[in-house]
Amino acid sequence: MIILGIDPGIAIMGYGIISYIGNRFEVISYGAITTDSKTPTPERLKKIYRELNELIEKYKPEAIAVEELFFNTNAKTALLVGHARGVAVLAAANNEKEIFEYTPLQVKQGVVGYGRAEKHQVQQMIKTILNLDKIPKPDDVADALAVAVCHAHSGNFKDLFRLK
Amino acid sequence: MIILGIDPGIAIMGYGIISYIGNRFEVISYGAITTDSKTPTPERLKKIYRELNELIEKYKPEAIAVEELFFNTNAKTALLVGHARGVAVLAAANNEKEIFEYTPLQVKQGVVGYGRAEKHQVQQMIKTILNLDKIPKPDDVADALAVAVCHAHSGNFKDLFRLK
Repeated sequence: MIILGIDPGIAIMGYGIISYIGNRFEVISYGAITTDSKTPTPERLKKIYRELNELIEKYKPEAIAVEELFFNTNAKTALLVGHARGVAVLAAANNEKEIFEYTPLQVKQGVVGYGRAEKHQVQQMIKTILNLDKIPKPDDVADALAVAVCHAHSGNFKDLFRLK
Repeated sequence: MIILGIDPGIAIMGYGIISYIGNRFEVISYGAITTDSKTPTPERLKKIYRELNELIEKYKPEAIAVEELFFNTNAKTALLVGHARGVAVLAAANNEKEIFEYTPLQVKQGVVGYGRAEKHQVQQMIKTILNLDKIPKPDDVADALAVAVCHAHSGNFKDLFRLK
């Protein structure tokens, strides 16, 4: 199964594409779609949508896993990041892909097996599982790979995490 | 000039299409794209994007005016509405349309000429200016027509309201 993991953001949208076959992981590609804060929002959204479409067409993931976002304070930030996440979900939906979402806690649980794991533990686990030379940077890329690994690990419970 | 006004929302996205030629207004179409809260978010976003694309292709507006949203409290709501607004902005951008945004205060100023006008005053003015039999319902539709009229009235100052 090929999985595309996404850590949504407007300035940096991390992505990680992995293959998970018979309990074996393989990294296919990872990186970030970045947009400049000086660029008008419509152009930023267009770029995110276009590049996600290209990734989906190129790698043909069977599932797309997106990190669920929480904002405690800043509704203005939530609104803007919501624009970017909405466009990511649309790209997945318009390509007829199944979309799943995981909270940060579920990602930790799914990757490390422990919901209160530290960020560096998650990153170390990603490096080990995916057999990488080093932890991918920025954090958004490691987070995207983590949500993809988390989805691979959700096994028979995948339906619970389908984006509603 | 044909203007598409949008009042963005995930459950109800109001739209209004007007023509403004030589200080004369004409209504072309108005209504709402609605989605059910029981429908998964990806499907809701897909429907909004598809129907907005259809409206843009059918009526070929020269400008699209979107209401700017504010949330004082609920970041969770802001995130979800941000998904819908992001998809609306993307539909406009992918159709190479110019996009403008107006705050609720600017809409009142632009329609009634007075930033502290009451909602019913704005609606009454919309009914009068557009020569409608009655005030369009729900409010989201009247709001969408209002932001379109506001854009028509912004005259030489349009550049100030370009979505950044």
